[in-house]
Amino acid sequence: MTDQAPTTPTPKFLSVLAGQRAERPPVWFMRQAGRYLPEYRALRATTPDFISFCLDSEKAAEATLQPMRRFPFDASIVFADILLIPRALGQDVWFEAGEGPKLGELPSLDVIEGKVDGAAEALRAVGNTLSIVREALEPERALIGFAGAPWTVATYMIEGGSSDRSKARTFAYEQPEEMERLLNALADSTALYLAMQARSGAQALKIFESWAEGLPEDLFEKLVIRPHQRIISRLRAEGIDTPVIGFPRGSAAYAERYAMKVDVQGVALDTACPALTGQRVQAVKPIQGALDPLLLRAGGEALDIRVQQMLEQWGGGPYIFNLGHGILQDTPIAHVERVLARVTGK
Amino acid sequence: MTDQAPTTPTPKFLSVLAGQRAERPPVWFMRQAGRYLPEYRALRATTPDFISFCLDSEKAAEATLQPMRRFPFDASIVFADILLIPRALGQDVWFEAGEGPKLGELPSLDVIEGKVDGAAEALRAVGNTLSIVREALEPERALIGFAGAPWTVATYMIEGGSSDRSKARTFAYEQPEEMERLLNALADSTALYLAMQARSGAQALKIFESWAEGLPEDLFEKLVIRPHQRIISRLRAEGIDTPVIGFPRGSAAYAERYAMKVDVQGVALDTACPALTGQRVQAVKPIQGALDPLLLRAGGEALDIRVQQMLEQWGGGPYIFNLGHGILQDTPIAHVERVLARVTGK
Repeated sequence: MTDQAPTTPTPKFLSVLAGQRAERPPVWFMRQAGRYLPEYRALRATTPDFISFCLDSEKAAEATLQPMRRFPFDASIVFADILLIPRALGQDVWFEAGEGPKLGELPSLDVIEGKVDGAAEALRAVGNTLSIVREALEPERALIGFAGAPWTVATYMIEGGSSDRSKARTFAYEQPEEMERLLNALADSTALYLAMQARSGAQALKIFESWAEGLPEDLFEKLVIRPHQRIISRLRAEGIDTPVIGFPRGSAAYAERYAMKVDVQGVALDTACPALTGQRVQAVKPIQGALDPLLLRAGGEALDIRVQQMLEQWGGGPYIFNLGHGILQDTPIAHVERVLARVTGK
Repeated sequence: MTDQAPTTPTPKFLSVLAGQRAERPPVWFMRQAGRYLPEYRALRATTPDFISFCLDSEKAAEATLQPMRRFPFDASIVFADILLIPRALGQDVWFEAGEGPKLGELPSLDVIEGKVDGAAEALRAVGNTLSIVREALEPERALIGFAGAPWTVATYMIEGGSSDRSKARTFAYEQPEEMERLLNALADSTALYLAMQARSGAQALKIFESWAEGLPEDLFEKLVIRPHQRIISRLRAEGIDTPVIGFPRGSAAYAERYAMKVDVQGVALDTACPALTGQRVQAVKPIQGALDPLLLRAGGEALDIRVQQMLEQWGGGPYIFNLGHGILQDTPIAHVERVLARVTGK
C-alpha cells in the first residue's frame, strides 16, 4: 500500500464511453427527469411556461437532480429542450398544453446566419444549470449536455411543430442549397452551444437526431452524416475534447455506417436495433440503448426477460444501458426501480 | 424458323419475380390507382363511401385499369383496401373524409375466430374485381392481389384507426396469448383471402406490413416473421403456388433476416433501404422498390439522378422498380411519365 492521496475515480459512464468494459454496464434513461416523477410535476407546476422553466437554471437544475436522488443512475442529463436553438436563432417557439411544440414563421437564412455566433451566449442559462448540477452531483456520477441534431431541429423549424417530416424532406429535394445553408447554421450554432455546455461542466455531449427514420441513403448522408461531422469538427476546433454520443434514431440500417463515418465516441441505438447490428456498431464504438419504453411501462416478466437479453447480447463489449427513446409519463416508478436493480445490483 | 403456334410470353414482372434478370426492370407503383389521376377522382365521386367503392367490382376493376391505360406499367394491382379483412371478421370499418380509417369496437377473439373460414367468401367481390381485370388486361402485363399483414391490420383493429401503434405494442407485451390468437386468426383469414384472389386471377400476391417500424427484435420475430410464415404455409397447404412479395416497411435492419426466414418469392423495400442492404437481400430473393414518393412529387434533376442511381445499384440482379411507399395524391402525372420513360424506355 502506498501513501497516495485519494483520487477521484473516473465515472463508470465515462470510462465505458472511453471504450473500457465494466463489470456491469452504467445506466441512465432518456427523459429520466420528467412527468413520471411526482416531484417533477410539482416543480413544473411552479412555472407553467415550458421554455421559461428550461431557462430558469435553479429549477432546471432541480429537475435534473430529482431522478439522481431517487435512483442509482450513473449519469445525469441536463434538463433543457432541443428547441432552444431555433429560439436562439430568431424563431418563436412555444408549447401548448397537450399539443407539443409550436414554432412561428421560419426566419430568413440571413437572419438565422446572423445569429449563429451569439446562440450559445443566448442560452447561457443552460450552462448555468450545468454548473449548478455539476456542483451538487457526486463525482462518480457523470453529467451529460445535449442538443438536437440539425436535421431534426430543421424539421421543426420548417414544419412549425411535430410532423411526418414530409414538408422538410420536400424542402431538401426542392431547395438543396437553402437546406444546406440552414443545416450549416444549425450545425455551427449547435457546436458552439455544446462547447459552452462542456465549459460549464458537461462531461459528455449527446446529439439527438430524433427523426433520422425514413431517409433514403443520399439524404441520410446529406442531412445526418455531414451535419454531425460538421458539429464534431467545429467542437474540436473550439478546443473541446469532451466525448460525444450520436443518436440517429430510426435508422438501424445505417448505424454501422454512421459509427464509422462520424467521429462520435459512442452511438445510441433505438428500440428497433437488432442484437447483431448493435454488436457490429460495438466493434467500432461503445453503444448505448435500447429498451422499449413501452415495455418499461408494461412491466412484468417480459420486461425482466428483455433486460436480461440486452445485458447478455451487448454486455460483452462497451455498453451503456438505456432506453431506446424517452421514458413515458405514465411509467410506474416501481418498474424503473426494478430495471435499475437488475442492471446495477442496487 | 419453325412453325410453332405463338405462345403467350410470361409477363416480365413474373419472370423477374421468378429470379430471372431482365434487360430492364419491370415497373409498377404502389397506389398507382388513385387520387393523382383525374379519371380516378371522377370515378370515386360516383360512390362516395369508400368501402362500398372497394366492394363494387365493376368500379374497382375500372379504377385498377385506369393507370394501365395511361402508363406502361408492367403490373396492375387490384383496387381494394387492407381493412376489408377486419370488416369480414366482424369489426365495423368506415372512412371519414380527410381523417383516414375508423374502426368500431374490437370483437371478442371467439367472434373473430368464428369468422376466419368465411372471410374469403365475404370478400368474394375482390375476387370478382380480379376476374374482370384479368380478362381486360393484356397477357404480358401481370395482375397482383394483396392483403394487409396480420400485425399491421391488428394495429388498426386494436387502436381503432391510424396511430403510433403504442397501444397495439403494449397489447403485445401485456397480453401475448391474446395477441397470438388475434394474429393467427388474421394470418389464417388472410391466407384464405389471398388463395381466393389467386383462384380469381391474381398472378402474384403482396403482403403489406405497413407498420413494421420501431419493433424490437423479439417483437419483429413474433409479430412479423411468424405470422408471415403462417400465411405462406397455409397458402401452400391450400394448393396455391402463386409467388408472394413481402413488404415489411420501416425495417431495413431486419430485411435480410426477413428474406431468409420467410418463404416469400420477393421482398419489397421502403425508401430508407441502403443500396448494400438491398443487394444483400437480392442475393437471396428478387427485390422491389424503393423510390421516395416525396421525390417523385418534387421532380427535377434530383429525381432523374435518383432513378438512375437505383437502376445502377440494383439493376444487376432481379429487380422490380417501384416506389418505397404509395404515390402521393398531388403527384404531377408528368413526373410519373418521366420516371416510366427512364425505366422502360417507352
